[in-house]
Amino acid sequence: MQLGFVSAILPDLSLEDVVGFAAAEGFACVELMCWPRGKAERRYAGVTHVDVAGFTQADAQRINELMAQAGVSISGLGYYPNPLTPDRAEAAVYIEHMQQVIRAAQMLGVRTFNTFIGRDWTRSVDANWPRFREVWPPLVKFAEDHGVRIGIENCPMLFSGDEWPGGKNLAATPAIWRRMFEEISSPNFGLNYDPSHLVWQRIDYVKPLWEFAGRIFHVHAKDARVDQARLDEVGILATPLQFHTPKLPGLGDVDWGRFFSVLGDVKYDGPVCIEVEDRAYEASLETRKVALRQSGRYLRQFIP
Amino acid sequence: MQLGFVSAILPDLSLEDVVGFAAAEGFACVELMCWPRGKAERRYAGVTHVDVAGFTQADAQRINELMAQAGVSISGLGYYPNPLTPDRAEAAVYIEHMQQVIRAAQMLGVRTFNTFIGRDWTRSVDANWPRFREVWPPLVKFAEDHGVRIGIENCPMLFSGDEWPGGKNLAATPAIWRRMFEEISSPNFGLNYDPSHLVWQRIDYVKPLWEFAGRIFHVHAKDARVDQARLDEVGILATPLQFHTPKLPGLGDVDWGRFFSVLGDVKYDGPVCIEVEDRAYEASLETRKVALRQSGRYLRQFIP
Amino acid sequence: MQLGFVSAILPDLSLEDVVGFAAAEGFACVELMCWPRGKAERRYAGVTHVDVAGFTQADAQRINELMAQAGVSISGLGYYPNPLTPDRAEAAVYIEHMQQVIRAAQMLGVRTFNTFIGRDWTRSVDANWPRFREVWPPLVKFAEDHGVRIGIENCPMLFSGDEWPGGKNLAATPAIWRRMFEEISSPNFGLNYDPSHLVWQRIDYVKPLWEFAGRIFHVHAKDARVDQARLDEVGILATPLQFHTPKLPGLGDVDWGRFFSVLGDVKYDGPVCIEVEDRAYEASLETRKVALRQSGRYLRQFIP
Amino acid sequence: MQLGFVSAILPDLSLEDVVGFAAAEGFACVELMCWPRGKAERRYAGVTHVDVAGFTQADAQRINELMAQAGVSISGLGYYPNPLTPDRAEAAVYIEHMQQVIRAAQMLGVRTFNTFIGRDWTRSVDANWPRFREVWPPLVKFAEDHGVRIGIENCPMLFSGDEWPGGKNLAATPAIWRRMFEEISSPNFGLNYDPSHLVWQRIDYVKPLWEFAGRIFHVHAKDARVDQARLDEVGILATPLQFHTPKLPGLGDVDWGRFFSVLGDVKYDGPVCIEVEDRAYEASLETRKVALRQSGRYLRQFIP
Amino acid sequence: MQLGFVSAILPDLSLEDVVGFAAAEGFACVELMCWPRGKAERRYAGVTHVDVAGFTQADAQRINELMAQAGVSISGLGYYPNPLTPDRAEAAVYIEHMQQVIRAAQMLGVRTFNTFIGRDWTRSVDANWPRFREVWPPLVKFAEDHGVRIGIENCPMLFSGDEWPGGKNLAATPAIWRRMFEEISSPNFGLNYDPSHLVWQRIDYVKPLWEFAGRIFHVHAKDARVDQARLDEVGILATPLQFHTPKLPGLGDVDWGRFFSVLGDVKYDGPVCIEVEDRAYEASLETRKVALRQSGRYLRQFIP
Amino acid sequence: MQLGFVSAILPDLSLEDVVGFAAAEGFACVELMCWPRGKAERRYAGVTHVDVAGFTQADAQRINELMAQAGVSISGLGYYPNPLTPDRAEAAVYIEHMQQVIRAAQMLGVRTFNTFIGRDWTRSVDANWPRFREVWPPLVKFAEDHGVRIGIENCPMLFSGDEWPGGKNLAATPAIWRRMFEEISSPNFGLNYDPSHLVWQRIDYVKPLWEFAGRIFHVHAKDARVDQARLDEVGILATPLQFHTPKLPGLGDVDWGRFFSVLGDVKYDGPVCIEVEDRAYEASLETRKVALRQSGRYLRQFIP
Repeated sequence: MQLGFVSAILPDLSLEDVVGFAAAEGFACVELMCWPRGKAERRYAGVTHVDVAGFTQADAQRINELMAQAGVSISGLGYYPNPLTPDRAEAAVYIEHMQQVIRAAQMLGVRTFNTFIGRDWTRSVDANWPRFREVWPPLVKFAEDHGVRIGIENCPMLFSGDEWPGGKNLAATPAIWRRMFEEISSPNFGLNYDPSHLVWQRIDYVKPLWEFAGRIFHVHAKDARVDQARLDEVGILATPLQFHTPKLPGLGDVDWGRFFSVLGDVKYDGPVCIEVEDRAYEASLETRKVALRQSGRYLRQFIP
Repeated sequence: MQLGFVSAILPDLSLEDVVGFAAAEGFACVELMCWPRGKAERRYAGVTHVDVAGFTQADAQRINELMAQAGVSISGLGYYPNPLTPDRAEAAVYIEHMQQVIRAAQMLGVRTFNTFIGRDWTRSVDANWPRFREVWPPLVKFAEDHGVRIGIENCPMLFSGDEWPGGKNLAATPAIWRRMFEEISSPNFGLNYDPSHLVWQRIDYVKPLWEFAGRIFHVHAKDARVDQARLDEVGILATPLQFHTPKLPGLGDVDWGRFFSVLGDVKYDGPVCIEVEDRAYEASLETRKVALRQSGRYLRQFIP
Repeated sequence: MQLGFVSAILPDLSLEDVVGFAAAEGFACVELMCWPRGKAERRYAGVTHVDVAGFTQADAQRINELMAQAGVSISGLGYYPNPLTPDRAEAAVYIEHMQQVIRAAQMLGVRTFNTFIGRDWTRSVDANWPRFREVWPPLVKFAEDHGVRIGIENCPMLFSGDEWPGGKNLAATPAIWRRMFEEISSPNFGLNYDPSHLVWQRIDYVKPLWEFAGRIFHVHAKDARVDQARLDEVGILATPLQFHTPKLPGLGDVDWGRFFSVLGDVKYDGPVCIEVEDRAYEASLETRKVALRQSGRYLRQFIP
Repeated sequence: MQLGFVSAILPDLSLEDVVGFAAAEGFACVELMCWPRGKAERRYAGVTHVDVAGFTQADAQRINELMAQAGVSISGLGYYPNPLTPDRAEAAVYIEHMQQVIRAAQMLGVRTFNTFIGRDWTRSVDANWPRFREVWPPLVKFAEDHGVRIGIENCPMLFSGDEWPGGKNLAATPAIWRRMFEEISSPNFGLNYDPSHLVWQRIDYVKPLWEFAGRIFHVHAKDARVDQARLDEVGILATPLQFHTPKLPGLGDVDWGRFFSVLGDVKYDGPVCIEVEDRAYEASLETRKVALRQSGRYLRQFIP
Repeated sequence: MQLGFVSAILPDLSLEDVVGFAAAEGFACVELMCWPRGKAERRYAGVTHVDVAGFTQADAQRINELMAQAGVSISGLGYYPNPLTPDRAEAAVYIEHMQQVIRAAQMLGVRTFNTFIGRDWTRSVDANWPRFREVWPPLVKFAEDHGVRIGIENCPMLFSGDEWPGGKNLAATPAIWRRMFEEISSPNFGLNYDPSHLVWQRIDYVKPLWEFAGRIFHVHAKDARVDQARLDEVGILATPLQFHTPKLPGLGDVDWGRFFSVLGDVKYDGPVCIEVEDRAYEASLETRKVALRQSGRYLRQFIP
Repeated sequence: MQLGFVSAILPDLSLEDVVGFAAAEGFACVELMCWPRGKAERRYAGVTHVDVAGFTQADAQRINELMAQAGVSISGLGYYPNPLTPDRAEAAVYIEHMQQVIRAAQMLGVRTFNTFIGRDWTRSVDANWPRFREVWPPLVKFAEDHGVRIGIENCPMLFSGDEWPGGKNLAATPAIWRRMFEEISSPNFGLNYDPSHLVWQRIDYVKPLWEFAGRIFHVHAKDARVDQARLDEVGILATPLQFHTPKLPGLGDVDWGRFFSVLGDVKYDGPVCIEVEDRAYEASLETRKVALRQSGRYLRQFIP
């Protein structure tokens, strides 16, 4: 496994500075954010470390040289919109950009593009399924044609009221993953596995590693702390941020020793990227760097 | 405390037979269902052991004599519609009937009417609040005027898809109860406390007994079993029956010893009515009677 | 479900007295022991409440009348030898007697014959398998031909040194049951399910109820207490009685509420027979009767 | 084992009525309180069901006939003063009365006299030890000479401020019991074992059953509930009633199944007397009777 | 947060050497001990790294230059006597010295002075309260006047017999802290929070972080291991060192990940000073240095 | 304590390279494997970093100089055959080589030789005991005469079918250690303590540290993960690798903080050698080096 981080937490740094920081801190890789330039639509979105619009082979070469000089690899390209949003025009824009990210990944020789399935959050999983069957097979085919794998992050994208009740990403549970992979069995369609989203959903985050071993293309190392005292007030039907808090690895409920123990046993040897969404560390660029440094120290107990 | 049961599980028995069964089995009380005559709208609804339409003092006298002869008391009258349903005409019918139940309770000398707050299940708690403030103050005032207490059952009324996402009863959590009682502080407004709904919401069902001691007017003894293996597949965002099963007391996750231990300490000495919604015991009238008998044996370890 | 007991604990009572005791104590059924007359080969064996040697239709009629008068049914006939014992001559004797029990069951109209698979205890499961494939298909066929089901008790028959290391019954674990039923898929081949043997093997005794629901023909209600302090001395490689003690239901580690909760949900409605192997209750006939009475009181919280 | 109760909870009943109640409810025995007539010094003290002052063989015969007619035995005589109280004149009065109880026990043929060691509550265990060595050897010798066993209840007698810090009975822990029995090895010196006092002291209440098997002369069945929320406020250095509540068996933290499981295995077959100190059941004579009845129902799951 | 240590563990080093060690090991701060020169009254007391007797502005300047050169800050000044000791003359000496430490803190520009409330250990909390009300308001006023905050360490100062029963510091529990801050609401009066003292008192050491967030001025990182086997012998009424052992962070029962997770969320960003009281590391100066080094490595997983 | 590793995981490195790696990674010591040159008989066996055949004082001096230059010490010599194997000729070869290792240890000034007791795996512990009494007293005497201690690793040497049922090393449990040391009380006979083998045997791996403190000569830091889902299939009677997996420290079920906490308290200050038997890290020399590096980072939180 290679320890790295998701670049979204360093939006104020240029690609060069991101990579320089990674190298200085001994990180082996970085997942680079590829949002279109413009205003972020939500927290942690809208970061552009690789601008895939009009991306050329020359751009690819320049970036690869930068990475090679730093001794840091690109774990994946990341862009996490909602391609099943009810507004089909908006969805088309997202999908078009997703294809551009896939093309850039091919040019860069990056194996994995990380994203969300998306969801019409006002409707049930079943009600979203026809749309899934319409949008995703061609997208996966597109990725196959470009030799790129798509890693779907298993975040429900349900945190507070505006995403209620369904969240903006279907791929939240093992039952749904199984359905996805039965529908689209392509070897280029898999998961960007993040245990923190399973912890607060009360889903065993170790058990699926055995069943979905071959589908895990990328791993996000984020943690979450469920506060029983808050849960005792609002229960599991509340919006999730009412009873849990995203935290750095080691500051939440994930048992990382057990997680990496089994992850190694199922022969995963890809990237593990720290994803920082811990507000206690977001005061400044310096505290966000501290967050990455501390998370790295914590995780290196369990991974190379 | 007085051990009894909710009459809804015996829809095929007349009032006389329900009371006779209670007496024969040593139950001290019964919560009598007062749905309007007609077709049930959902499982466990639509049962009419007291027909409050056109209810007279003579009716009251006849029923009270029946109860007195059997040595069984009426723990409360029950009618559980959705008075905040989006269809206001439908809601008005419910509210009109609720008032009839309250009038009947007064005539019978029954202290408590048990029901739901209701909810527009497609909208958030906050979005339902204006409607709560419109409907409930006059209803509680009506009950006060008739010397009757209203016990709100704390069931989220969210089991499967058609009640998704919000369920049909606002009064699901301690946070919401607090809000309700801050809004309407009447001593005639309280809870029909059922621990089973808190168990699967992952809310401590003992802790609120201290805070809400004075608001507990009635208790339902039902249990629920959460299956972690099912939860591991679908997570807490699934509709609740995907990961839990309502069961008889003693066959679920409620620690009844601890529950009654604290319930006694906060000086509750009202009725405790077994509510059977366990499909493993619903094959026939005889199995439903068995369910009440077995539940009684189980609970008498912990209560008089 | 029908609550009863295994007659082996009352070897000093005649069939009439066993059935009389059952009736007096309100038990619905009894599993009747059918060992050949003669010396018991081990504790709890060698009891003959139905002597199947030379069993006639007249014998069957007499017994059935006795049962009918008492209002007690026969849950099954029981005979638990080691038909895979290395001494083939000895095994042939056992098998011959097993067939006699099956014939008697047919004559009595009893659905189930309970027994063990047997095992050469000095050899591994794999090494025993050829013998299983030789002995069991004809036996199950024989039972099919007589309209009788065979319920295999899941006891490893490994308690102390003389049964070390393998025990005298292959059917100890879910993995082996699966293998058995893949090998012999007959609907007349199933389990006499006893959770106590799974408890000390550290196997979840509830989980298999779902998978093997249709294979559960009979249930033994016995319990076992694992003592961690003893386990801390000798570990799981010791002979099992060094770290656990068979006990009455309610005095061991089985969570009977959960067990019966799921057993009901998978629609089991057959017999549940208390099996007493608790030395603290074996001082006299009276204490053994006390054991059945107390176990009955305990279990009736959870079953009809 | 024989199930009974401690008569202290029925101070308003005569001996005849106590015994009549025991018989009517199916209790096998009663521990009879033998306080000197006069004002009780604390809650649950001062009850006189047998007045040992001037006790004669005729008194003994009358009582024994009463018991025999009712079919109820005397499990022990109880008198629980503080014979190590700093006021030596007061202590002498206690000791004199203890001797009278022992004499009465001999006359009644009752095997066991239950009491406390006592303690100067302002001083440490070590500082009390010389006084223990002075008072207790002659007392035990006295009991030996009268063929009576002394069962020391393991209650720290520390509940609230006036008993702070040391409590009024040394015999609170296994370490102290060991010291007591090393000091006085008489077979007439043992324990009246009550698991509830160990629960809130965070002492395993099952483990000592093995070590002290032969010293257990009598058992009190009382329970206690520790409330973690209260403990979180005041910690273990607070006076104990700030964080725990004495309760009926089944309403506290004792695992009675495990307790009786091991108690039977170590071959205890003496009395088990329900001791009611649960304020939720003390409103009236009737509620106190209810407490005994309910406790009996609960415990009969686990004992004959 | 800034990681540092308490200088008391290095009594044999000069201030220069303490600070040099801190710098070399990457510690950001040190809590400097300010006992009066002379003989230590107990283990870990009597250390003088800053001699506040006759402390001058020149002394302050010299020390501040030393710190600045080393790049190490002073997290607080520490002096932990018993200002409520029954001997009022002795108490007056302590209070006089406390004022000198406060004056020195002002001169050094150090924000926090850490100490104990003290207690007459032979008397209850209530009985100590009048003395608290006499001594502490003027002391806090004195600190306010000098712009210094007082951080009270939450150690009960009850370890073995000579501090029995009450310990020498009132400020042991959340209930008492609440009472202290209701009595004296000054913003200069707060806590030097050490979770290890709460662990063995069985108090949740995370929950108070929310309620007392604004009162936490300083944090001690010490751990404690409760041994259940020892507790099973002596119970919670024993002197605490009979059942627990103070240990380095990571070698005890504190869940430091959870502790720092919440500490960050409540926006604490002050010093965290390792306090070594682990006898397994006290053989020599070198092993005490090792203790600080190892504790630092352990804690840096969870804090910057 | 000194952190090091067992050299068996680096069979492809020369002694010089092993020691160089240890020094470069900051390990204080190495346990050097001393198998006879030739083919390994099982995984992790057959490694020869010190060839004790014909070992001379010159060899010893050369090795000691190498170690001294690197600043790495030899924690012990290791050779782990089965000296109680049923084939006595084979056993004699093992014993002869064990003596050679002891001689080499003496020449090198190494205090400890680590090995197994051995066992005839087809027979019970009792049945092996006569052989133990024959072989081991002279071996321990031999070690005494050479001033060398023998540390017996507590591995049952039972992993899969070919070692079934008894395993190839008697010294698996505290009960057996006690028996060994009662039989041979020599101060040169002790344990090479590895907690991982106790974890899967469900034996408390901390409790024995108190009792056997003086017998612990060497410690292996290996971990093991028990998978309950696998155990639920096969139970504890299966061969152990069916339900557990050996892992690096931190990736298994051992609570290393608690382990080292107590290990320090009982005053162990000898070597702690990482033993790598984690197949997820055995792909190449580089991954095995990574395993040691990562294990070192993990363990240095808890030990110097």
